[in-house]
Amino acid sequence: MERAVLRYKNSVISGLIINESNGLITLKASNGYNMTFDRSEVEFIERKKEESPERKSIEAVEKGQGDRKISVLATGGTIASRVDYETGAVSPVSDPELIFGGSDILTRFTVAVKPILNEFSENLKPADWIRIGQAVADESSEADGVVVAHGTDTMAYTSSALAFMFERMRVPVVFVGAQRSSDRPSSDSRENMQAAINFAGTDLGEVGISMHASTSDGHVSLLRSVRSRKMHTSRRDAFESIGIPPLAEYDGSVKFLIDYRRVSDTVEFRPDLDDRVSMIYFHPGLNAGDLENMIAEKHAVVILGTGLGHMAKDLIPVVKKYTADGNYAIMASQCIYGSTDLNVYSTGRELLAAGVIEAGNMVPEVAYVKAMYLLGQYPHDLFRDLFRKNMRGEIVERDLPVEIIKLGR
Amino acid sequence: MERAVLRYKNSVISGLIINESNGLITLKASNGYNMTFDRSEVEFIERKKEESPERKSIEAVEKGQGDRKISVLATGGTIASRVDYETGAVSPVSDPELIFGGSDILTRFTVAVKPILNEFSENLKPADWIRIGQAVADESSEADGVVVAHGTDTMAYTSSALAFMFERMRVPVVFVGAQRSSDRPSSDSRENMQAAINFAGTDLGEVGISMHASTSDGHVSLLRSVRSRKMHTSRRDAFESIGIPPLAEYDGSVKFLIDYRRVSDTVEFRPDLDDRVSMIYFHPGLNAGDLENMIAEKHAVVILGTGLGHMAKDLIPVVKKYTADGNYAIMASQCIYGSTDLNVYSTGRELLAAGVIEAGNMVPEVAYVKAMYLLGQYPHDLFRDLFRKNMRGEIVERDLPVEIIKLGR
Repeated sequence: MERAVLRYKNSVISGLIINESNGLITLKASNGYNMTFDRSEVEFIERKKEESPERKSIEAVEKGQGDRKISVLATGGTIASRVDYETGAVSPVSDPELIFGGSDILTRFTVAVKPILNEFSENLKPADWIRIGQAVADESSEADGVVVAHGTDTMAYTSSALAFMFERMRVPVVFVGAQRSSDRPSSDSRENMQAAINFAGTDLGEVGISMHASTSDGHVSLLRSVRSRKMHTSRRDAFESIGIPPLAEYDGSVKFLIDYRRVSDTVEFRPDLDDRVSMIYFHPGLNAGDLENMIAEKHAVVILGTGLGHMAKDLIPVVKKYTADGNYAIMASQCIYGSTDLNVYSTGRELLAAGVIEAGNMVPEVAYVKAMYLLGQYPHDLFRDLFRKNMRGEIVERDLPVEIIKLGR
Repeated sequence: MERAVLRYKNSVISGLIINESNGLITLKASNGYNMTFDRSEVEFIERKKEESPERKSIEAVEKGQGDRKISVLATGGTIASRVDYETGAVSPVSDPELIFGGSDILTRFTVAVKPILNEFSENLKPADWIRIGQAVADESSEADGVVVAHGTDTMAYTSSALAFMFERMRVPVVFVGAQRSSDRPSSDSRENMQAAINFAGTDLGEVGISMHASTSDGHVSLLRSVRSRKMHTSRRDAFESIGIPPLAEYDGSVKFLIDYRRVSDTVEFRPDLDDRVSMIYFHPGLNAGDLENMIAEKHAVVILGTGLGHMAKDLIPVVKKYTADGNYAIMASQCIYGSTDLNVYSTGRELLAAGVIEAGNMVPEVAYVKAMYLLGQYPHDLFRDLFRKNMRGEIVERDLPVEIIKLGR
C-alpha cells in the first residue's frame, strides 16, 4: 500500500492510495472518506510505500457492572475493524468502553468480548458455522445472552445455519454487523451493537440479526435470521426481513413487533451439516451439460428458477435423473419476493413430476442452509416432508396465494 | 388432466384437478380461481380423464382504423394464453377486438397481431432472442411501433438482449407481459397491452417493458429494459426498475418521467451473440473444483458475489487462471440493490488483481446479456472498456457512492 500527499487545484490532500486505474486515483483520507481525482490534474508532493495492513487478533476482555452477562463473540468483518490511517493497519475494536461509552450498557450488563475467528464473512465455510455454533453453545451455559459480531456478506447464511442447528436455545443469540467500519464518521457499528446487547437481554429463543432499520440513525431492527437477506450492497439498512416484519425494534428500548419463540430452559445444539449442497442460478444459456457438471457429486441442489419456479424444459430430464439417483432438487425463485408455485403452469407440473421440491416462500439462501441441515441430521426418507415443514419460522404461512382456501389445517 | 365434480360440505364443486398431494386436492374452478380441499373431507361425484391441454398457434390478424400501425408480435407466455375450462385447452388470445374492445385503441391505431413463437419464456434461448430481434427489425421498417408479447419469466433477459442488439431504432419497441392469464377475473393483460400500444405510439428509441405500476389497476409503467428485473413471483407489479424511476407511466395518457433516447431515422440491428457465458451464484459451500466445472468452456462468467462483490479467497486463484487464459470474469452482487465496489476491502482488491471486471450497479442479468453481446460483436481487446461504458442506459451514473468526487468526466 502507498501513502501519498498531493496537490489538487489549491488544496493539499494526503491519504492512502486505494486505487489507481483508468486515469483516476482514489485516496482514503484521514476522515475515512474516499476521494477520486483525475490523475492528470494532481501533482504528487510525496508518495511512499507502506507495509500491507494486517488484521490483528483482538484480546478477550470483560467490562461492566451489570448483573446480566452478555458474551460477544467476534468473528471478523467490518464491525470488528478499525483502520489506523497512520499505519494502514486494520485493528479490530474490542474494548467495550470504546464501543459502549456514553450509553448505559455497562451499568446494566457485564459484557465479555471473545475473539473466536478473524475472517471476512465471504471466507466462512459450513465448517465455520459449526465452530461458531459450538462457541455459542458453550457461552449459552454461562451467559444470559450471546451476540455474534459477523461480516454482513454471509451473515444471513451463518445465522440461519445456527437457527437450524439449535434445536433449543437457553439464551437469545443475536448476530450483528456493520456496513461502515467503526472509524468512519457514518459508522453504524455502535448503534447496531448497542441494540444487539439489548436484544440479547430479552427472552428471545431465536437467532436474530441486529442491523439499522433505515438509512438514518436511531432505529435498529431485530430480524428473524431465517427470513433475512442482505438486499443492498452498501446501505446501512441493507438487511431486510423478506415477507414478514422485523421481530423487534430498538430505539432506546426493545419493542417486539411480532410473535417469537421464547428461550427454553436447556440448550440443544446439533452441529451436523452436509455441505455437499449447491446453489444454481438458472439463466437462458444454461444447458443440460452445464447443469450436470454443477450438480455432480452434490446431494442436493437449490435452483434459483425464474418466476414461480421455472427452468427450461430441456433441463428437466437432468433433474429427473438426479432425483431418481436419490438426490434432492429444490426450486426457489430468483425473483426473491413471493413464492414458488409449480401447479400453475405445465413447466412447473413437469418439474414436480421430475421430483422437484418447492422452496415455496423460503428465502433461497435459507433453503440452501436448510438442505444442508436436513441431510446432516435426519434420515433421508424424511427430507421431503421436513423440507416443507416450518421448523424455525423459515416459511411464512400467511403468504400462501390468497385464492387458495386452506381447509382443515 | 382430470376433471372432477365433488361434494364438500353442502356444496357441489366442479373443476380441473391441478394438484393432488399430501392429503390435499386443488381444483381450478370455472371462474379461474383455485380451491384446495382436505382430501378426506370431499366426496367424488364424478372424476374423469381428459386430453392434455395443447398450446394452439394463433392466426395473424389486423384490425383498426387508425393511421398509425402497431405490430404486436406474440411469442407465448401468460399474456397470450386463455384456458378453456370446458376442454382444458390453452388457447392464445389474438383477436384485437377482444383485447381492445371498449377502448379507443382501434380508432387511433391499426393493430396487426403476428405469432412468431409459442413458447413459455423460460424455454427461450439466446438464439430465440436473435429470432425475436430479427422479427422486430423486419416490422420496424413497416410499422410505427412494435409490441412484443412475452412470458414474464425471462422478459428482462430478452428485452435487454434486444436493447443491445439494436444499435439504432426507428420505432419504439415495447415488451408486454401478464401475471394472470386473460381469462382470469384479475387479469392484468388487457391494461398492460393497452398501455403497451400507447407507449409504442411515442418517440421512444429504447426497448421498454410495459407492466402494472402497482397491485391495483389504472397505472401501467414503462420500464427501461436494461434496468428491469422481475422482483416478485406473482404480484401484478412484479417488474421493478432497479435504481431509476420508470421511463413513463400510462393512466389514460402517456407521461414520460425521465429522459430517454429518441427514435432514429434508420434501424440498425446487429444480431450476433456469444452464448458461452454463464451466471454463477456464489455460496459458502462453493469450492474451487465446483467453480472450475462451472466455467470450463465458457468465454465469460457473471458471478453473483456477496455484498460489494466478494467471494471466498480460495476461489480467487481459479478466477485468476480463468482470466489469464483470455476469458472474462464479471463480479455482480446477489444483493441486487446497490453497486459492487471492489476497492473497499482486501478481498475486492485481490479480485481486481485477478482480472475481475466490476458489474458496478448493472443488474446481474443485464451484465450477463451484455457480456454475450460484447463477445459476439466487438474485438475482445475492447471488452473491458466497453463493459464499463454505459451503452444503453444499463449503468446508473448517479448511483456512484456519494463520497466519490467525480472530476473531469
